[in-house]
Formats: sequence, structure tokens, C-alpha cells
Amino acid sequence: MKAGPMVNPCRYLEMSVEMKTLPDCIPCFMRQTLEAARQATNDEFIHEKALRTIAYEISRMDLDRPPPIMGGIIHRTVRELTQNKDPYKNSKDICNRSALELFAEMGDFVSNSTDPLETALKIAIAGNVIDFSISPDADQLDIRSAIDEVLAQPLHTDTVDQFRKAVESSHTILYLGDNAGEIVFDRILIEQLPKDKLTYIVKGHPTINDVTIDDAEAAGITDLVEVIDTGSDIPGIVLEECSGSFRSRFEQSDLIISKGQGNYECLSDMDKDTFFVFKAKCSSVAIHLCCEVGKPILIRSKCGEWLMKGCSRY
Amino acid sequence: MKAGPMVNPCRYLEMSVEMKTLPDCIPCFMRQTLEAARQATNDEFIHEKALRTIAYEISRMDLDRPPPIMGGIIHRTVRELTQNKDPYKNSKDICNRSALELFAEMGDFVSNSTDPLETALKIAIAGNVIDFSISPDADQLDIRSAIDEVLAQPLHTDTVDQFRKAVESSHTILYLGDNAGEIVFDRILIEQLPKDKLTYIVKGHPTINDVTIDDAEAAGITDLVEVIDTGSDIPGIVLEECSGSFRSRFEQSDLIISKGQGNYECLSDMDKDTFFVFKAKCSSVAIHLCCEVGKPILIRSKCGEWLMKGCSRY
Repeated sequence: MKAGPMVNPCRYLEMSVEMKTLPDCIPCFMRQTLEAARQATNDEFIHEKALRTIAYEISRMDLDRPPPIMGGIIHRTVRELTQNKDPYKNSKDICNRSALELFAEMGDFVSNSTDPLETALKIAIAGNVIDFSISPDADQLDIRSAIDEVLAQPLHTDTVDQFRKAVESSHTILYLGDNAGEIVFDRILIEQLPKDKLTYIVKGHPTINDVTIDDAEAAGITDLVEVIDTGSDIPGIVLEECSGSFRSRFEQSDLIISKGQGNYECLSDMDKDTFFVFKAKCSSVAIHLCCEVGKPILIRSKCGEWLMKGCSRY
Repeated sequence: MKAGPMVNPCRYLEMSVEMKTLPDCIPCFMRQTLEAARQATNDEFIHEKALRTIAYEISRMDLDRPPPIMGGIIHRTVRELTQNKDPYKNSKDICNRSALELFAEMGDFVSNSTDPLETALKIAIAGNVIDFSISPDADQLDIRSAIDEVLAQPLHTDTVDQFRKAVESSHTILYLGDNAGEIVFDRILIEQLPKDKLTYIVKGHPTINDVTIDDAEAAGITDLVEVIDTGSDIPGIVLEECSGSFRSRFEQSDLIISKGQGNYECLSDMDKDTFFVFKAKCSSVAIHLCCEVGKPILIRSKCGEWLMKGCSRY
């Protein structure tokens, strides 16, 4: 991927490097609401109620907050209206099982590659294609195609080397998990990392298809490393909404590996040494990154220093 | 096109045959709001204000009304916020000019065909691809491809014959126009119809790219037939919102030729002999018609009798 000139396409970016909610996010919120409501129940009166509730929330929302804040409201509203605590449970289980079927093959692929760490990073990025906020149907996801596509694209060699060195020199690493299914591909990467200093983070409560402790167990992550949760149901890390114990661990860590768009949207301006590992899957994130939709992303943010160099983020 | 069994996919259709607002319309309203706001101004504070305003309107809207009611609110809100009386003026002019470049060729094509009326009907349907509520960018519309696609698909022979006979036996025909650009293709059809008993209807005020008197003049329709307006800015015929003079003319007419989705959405259950002529361009309309998105539609509704025959609408 080439570094290009920094472009601020709108006022939201001029004010700060933090990922705000862009106007394009708003139709997407309504789409997500309808998809989540249909995932949770066939009752069309509840679909309507969810849409009206979120429309009202949008009319008064704070656009200076990152999009996962509204994501949290959407999925909390659907859970409350349907009394369904985990509407995506079945879909998440399907994704975990599908990914586990590929696990041994992917592991061999990494072991036999010339640079196992880089290959494992690519596989972890490919796993990020499993995102029900973008595509709600587990059956339609073609994980193998996503892997082949990401493997065919080079990562920025310098960033991979930086990742390697940062992992070696750090003392406490937090690996922020993202989605079910994807977590199995995270395990591929974790097996290349120093497990004694790594903690894997799951969400505190089910929200969309984000990982919880159940998924960490299903993927075998709990057998490898310590797993703790955020204490929050927001599909991204919003520190002030997380538990005190998670915030302490976050502050004490000296390296963050952050998976997924939701975590990027929340942490992109964080004063913390962070590698973001994901696919750019919507126009709002692609605008923020100055990249095309669909790009595999491995970028480092350290105390916001990327902004000083223009758009040399990846 | 085959007649299939009547399917009521949701409660909205069970209560009435009138086209209600479906849940799928709601994300689409937000998308239309953003596109309309961007069409009208580059001021992102106004984009945000428009989105918040329509989100609030959605939170309390009457879903038993047809979707163009909210379409009217969206485009009125954008015009008021921007003080831009006709945001699509330039795009409409481009569409009219592009269509006029094809006019002579299409006219020859109709003259040389074995059934000029059927061919003209197909061309009028193809023109309906020009719809900024679906695709906002005039430059991206491929009108010629749309024509070729519709010409390649048969219309229901019986319905074409019914159309021919109804036109012959009627005394006063209202032809409800739809969009700029498309109006030039309406002229192709109007040239095959008895002009002395036909009145062409335009909207009373600019709304999206719907036709006004200016477009009727640009397309040369005013030189062929009488043109009157609805007195309303709703992108569909909602009789109670139209002027008294239009309503009288509507009541006095004995045949309606209705172009476009917006008019179908508003008039589908009207107790009036009506031929609907358009392309089904979104899932909500396709569900209501029991057809696939993209289908060319020529259907007759006479006093709601189609429902008595199950889904024998086309």
C-alpha cells in the first residue's frame, strides 16, 4: 500500500483525528437496526418499534462520538425490545465452527511460510471479513476467498517489522478481539506471539457478533492466554464505558493489538502504542484512513504521531 | 412475465392492498436525505441538520401512508434548509438533453417495429430507469443499456392488448409523468396515443427530479398535448394534497396512464382504471408486486379487481 498525501474530506476530520460519526454512517445505522431486529425476531411490530426508537436517537445523537456508540444503542435496544439477550448466538456459533474447520490448514500454511508472523497477520486480517454490522448473513460469507484475497496483497514491510519489534520489546500486550469466527484466525496470530505477556480481550456482554468469553472458549483462546472482558456491550472499546478493572489493565499495558473496525473507530486517536489490524469495510472508515474500501489494514498509531507525518498511516 | 400465487410477505399487505411504507423504506429514506442534501449544498452542517430532521420525522411517521409522503417531506426539508428551490435543476437538464439526443433514433425504432404501440410502451418503461431517488448521479445512468434491456423482455401480450383497447374506448386520459429525462421517452409513447383526449400531468413544484412544466416544455410535450400540474410537491399522486382543479380532472378522467414507482406507490389501490408503466426498482415495490427488482412493469388495476384474481397483476 502506498502512502499518499493527507486529505481531510470534511470538517469532521479537520477538528480532530478521532473517528467521528460521519453522515454516511446514519443510513447505515438504520440498515443495521432493521437487520438486527430481523435477526432477533420475526415480529414486524418490533422491527417498526426498533426503527422508530433508533430514528429518534439519531435525531439527537452526538456526532462527535465514534460510530460504535450508536452501534451499542442499536443492539441494546433490539435486545431489550425482543427480550433476546444474544440474537446472534446461532450465527456466531456457525462462524466459529466454519473458521475452526479451516484452522489446521491455516496453521500449516503459516508454519510453512517464509515469514510465519506476516502470514499470520494476513490471516488475522482476512478473518475480519466476518462482520455482521456489514453483512448479516453467516451463510453468505466466503471466508476462504477472503483469505486468498488478503494473502495476495502485500503488507507494508516496515510496519510488519515494527510490529515484530514492538511485540518483542513490550512487557504487557492487550489483544482486542472483534468478532466470532474471526477469533479463530486471531488464535493463528496469537500462536506466533509471546503468550506469557498477552491478554485477549472480549466484550462484557453479547453485542452483534462481537466476541464474548464463550467465543474465546470455543476458539481455544482460553487455553492459550489470559482472557478478560471489557465490562461493556459497545462493539468497540469506549474506555469510559468499560469496567474499572479493564481500564486499569488497558492503562498498564504497553502495546495494544486492536482488531476490527469498531475498535479502530474508538481508539484511532488514543495516546497509546497501538497496531490496528483489520479490513476497511465501509466508506466512513476508508475516508478516515485515506484508503479504498476493502483494503487490508496494518497500521501503527503511537501517541497520534502518524498525523505528524501526513497520511503515512500504513 | 408469469403470474404466480399471491404472496403476502408481511402484515402490511395483509391489511390492505395499498402500498404502505415498509421497514425497508426507512434506511432508504435516510440515504435519500443525505443524497438530496449533498445535491443541494456542500455545507455539511446542513447535511447533518437534514439527517436529524428526517430521523425525527421517521420516529413519528405514519407507516400506513405510501412512501412518497416521506419523500415529499425529505425533499421539502432539504429545499427549506438550503433555500435552494430546485436542487436537481442541473441534473434534470442533463437528463433531458441526454434523452433528447436519443429521441429521433427511438422514434425511428418505434416507426419501424411490427407493433409501434408495444415498442413505445417498452421505451417509456426503459426511460423510468432515470430515477434520482434510486441513483442520484445523472452521469452514471446508462439509458441506452436500459432501453436494450427492456426491449429484450416481452410484455404480457394480453395487457398490451387491454391497453390498446382501453385507450381507444376512453374519452379522457390522464398521463401521469414521473421524472426528467424519462419525459422524453413518454413523448415517444404519447405520439402513439390519441393526443386530443390526453392530458399530461407534471408536479406542481420541483421535488427530486420529478417533472415540472419546465421539463414538459423541454421535452416538447407542451406542443403535443395539454399539460397541467398536480399543485403538490409530493413525488407521487396523493390526491388530498393536490389542487382542487387537478382532483376534478382526475375524477373526470376515465383512464389513467401512471408512470413511475412513486405514482404506483400512491395509486395502487385507487378505484380507477389505471395502467401502471414503470420498472420495479426497489425491494419494497417488488414485494408489493410479487416480482423481482428490475422487472419492467405494465399492469392494469381496475377498481382493485386484480386482487380478486390473486397475483395476476401483470
